[in-house]
Amino acid sequence: MLERADLPEEVSIKDVSPRDGLQAEPKVLSVDERVSLVNQLTAAGLKHIEVTSFVSPKWLPQMADAETVMARIDRKPGVTYAVLVPNPKGAERALSTKPDEMTVFVSASETHNYKNVHQSISESLGGFHRICQMARGEGVPVTAVIVTSFGCPYEGRVPVNAVLDLAVRLESMGIADITLGDTVGVANPLQVAEMVHAFRMNAPMVRVGLHFHDNRGTALANMLAGVIAGCTRFETALGGIGGSPFSPGAGGNLATEDAVYCLSEMGIKTGVDLERLMGITQYLEGAIGHEVPSRVFKAGGRMVPVGIEGSLNE
Amino acid sequence: MLERADLPEEVSIKDVSPRDGLQAEPKVLSVDERVSLVNQLTAAGLKHIEVTSFVSPKWLPQMADAETVMARIDRKPGVTYAVLVPNPKGAERALSTKPDEMTVFVSASETHNYKNVHQSISESLGGFHRICQMARGEGVPVTAVIVTSFGCPYEGRVPVNAVLDLAVRLESMGIADITLGDTVGVANPLQVAEMVHAFRMNAPMVRVGLHFHDNRGTALANMLAGVIAGCTRFETALGGIGGSPFSPGAGGNLATEDAVYCLSEMGIKTGVDLERLMGITQYLEGAIGHEVPSRVFKAGGRMVPVGIEGSLNE
Repeated sequence: MLERADLPEEVSIKDVSPRDGLQAEPKVLSVDERVSLVNQLTAAGLKHIEVTSFVSPKWLPQMADAETVMARIDRKPGVTYAVLVPNPKGAERALSTKPDEMTVFVSASETHNYKNVHQSISESLGGFHRICQMARGEGVPVTAVIVTSFGCPYEGRVPVNAVLDLAVRLESMGIADITLGDTVGVANPLQVAEMVHAFRMNAPMVRVGLHFHDNRGTALANMLAGVIAGCTRFETALGGIGGSPFSPGAGGNLATEDAVYCLSEMGIKTGVDLERLMGITQYLEGAIGHEVPSRVFKAGGRMVPVGIEGSLNE
Repeated sequence: MLERADLPEEVSIKDVSPRDGLQAEPKVLSVDERVSLVNQLTAAGLKHIEVTSFVSPKWLPQMADAETVMARIDRKPGVTYAVLVPNPKGAERALSTKPDEMTVFVSASETHNYKNVHQSISESLGGFHRICQMARGEGVPVTAVIVTSFGCPYEGRVPVNAVLDLAVRLESMGIADITLGDTVGVANPLQVAEMVHAFRMNAPMVRVGLHFHDNRGTALANMLAGVIAGCTRFETALGGIGGSPFSPGAGGNLATEDAVYCLSEMGIKTGVDLERLMGITQYLEGAIGHEVPSRVFKAGGRMVPVGIEGSLNE
């Protein structure tokens, strides 16, 4: 039985649209547009933003000029401006911009990690060790994402223990905030609940976050399962953008609007103003030049009279 | 904590695409196409189909020739071929076709009922009384849908007690299978859980079914909440078609593919063959002439290698 008392008072939302979202867009946004997106998100109440990533612009032109973006955003007090770094070189660039948080990433499956960053998982962890040392010198916390935590397009279902082991190794480097990513949208709600439960039982020192893609329409149900299981940290992207538009069946992230709407309808606070958020989505659609997948953005957060809908039918 | 042991072994799916789905399509399908859709659905393992509705073709040309459709479908043993009837006149037409089940509908809110069928709720119930008498004479069970059970576009949130009272009145006429419809897609998972719980506590003689529209992307999460709360009967539509394409922000039904995929990933049986189902969706898209909203139909039910997806990023 699902009861209000089983649900948390509050859930924290990290919006990753400026990074995970925009990097998947064929159109490269200008620095001005990317800065504006970040500033609008914090104005709507978001307290945690993934601003950009420090990868080579050869790989991802969408993330070029990351230093300029970081220099030009308004740093609102109380907001965590996070950046993604793929390797120590990226971390060096990132640290020069004084982020509030640096995020590293590694796949739960060897094949995906190799395809993604051309390294074994051990090699990735070696790099993180150096990144953690560099970050410690500057007093910047390091967080991690474990990619393909719920399934790998090459290796299939990933064992819970593989994810747990990797998390424990990351935690031993001082990385306590670890987000489990469902990169290809294959998680199911029961699996999410079991994963969160396994972390609470076996790695209680890890603060688990969840990051869902919506390839199979399961992202919101997976978030619900995570919330029921006691997780209170979620990564979402404005409009539900993200994923790879060039992969067959690729789906975007769980839309920030859809997450905030559903949580707020259940009486769970996010601190985010849904109406303001949807104004930003309108801006985002203009900037990227196409419709976004968010359902709440299309339907509106609140019921509105819809005319004589469904006359003579249910 | 959500555990496998809390979930049912099996869930029954009633596909309403031939009725709730097709009646919302601008293109009127031929009798042959509608018969073929029903026969294909039963071949994929569906044991419960809403075949058509006996409304005036003046109102819904999509449902014209309902008698011919009923006469021409293959009646597979073990399958319940249900029809929707708006009034005693429709019931008379329906009974001549020997359906396995007749479904009546009434709104939980007076305003919606009046806008929908131009009657008060009491007048609707009066009609159901006659319909039940007629059906009893022919040995055909009557089921009901309570429309706008989770919210009305005119009156807003509907009190749980209003839905319960209506259900008890229906049950006293001999209608024990009652489906709660989220007609405009405003239910949230907590509300669904509370509603199912209220029925189990206060009206245990009612067999509750749930019917969700996906206007705000919540349909699958609402189904999950329903399953957790102990409901094992759901209405879905192939491809996620339905809703009103002419209403702003209207959303289709929960897609049968998406429901079957998610349930089956959690180890819950539906008896439906997902791969065959998606073959029918392909047929359906051809027949209605546009893409359907189902996510699983686009992404595929199972993980497939997607190339070097998301290189140098998570």
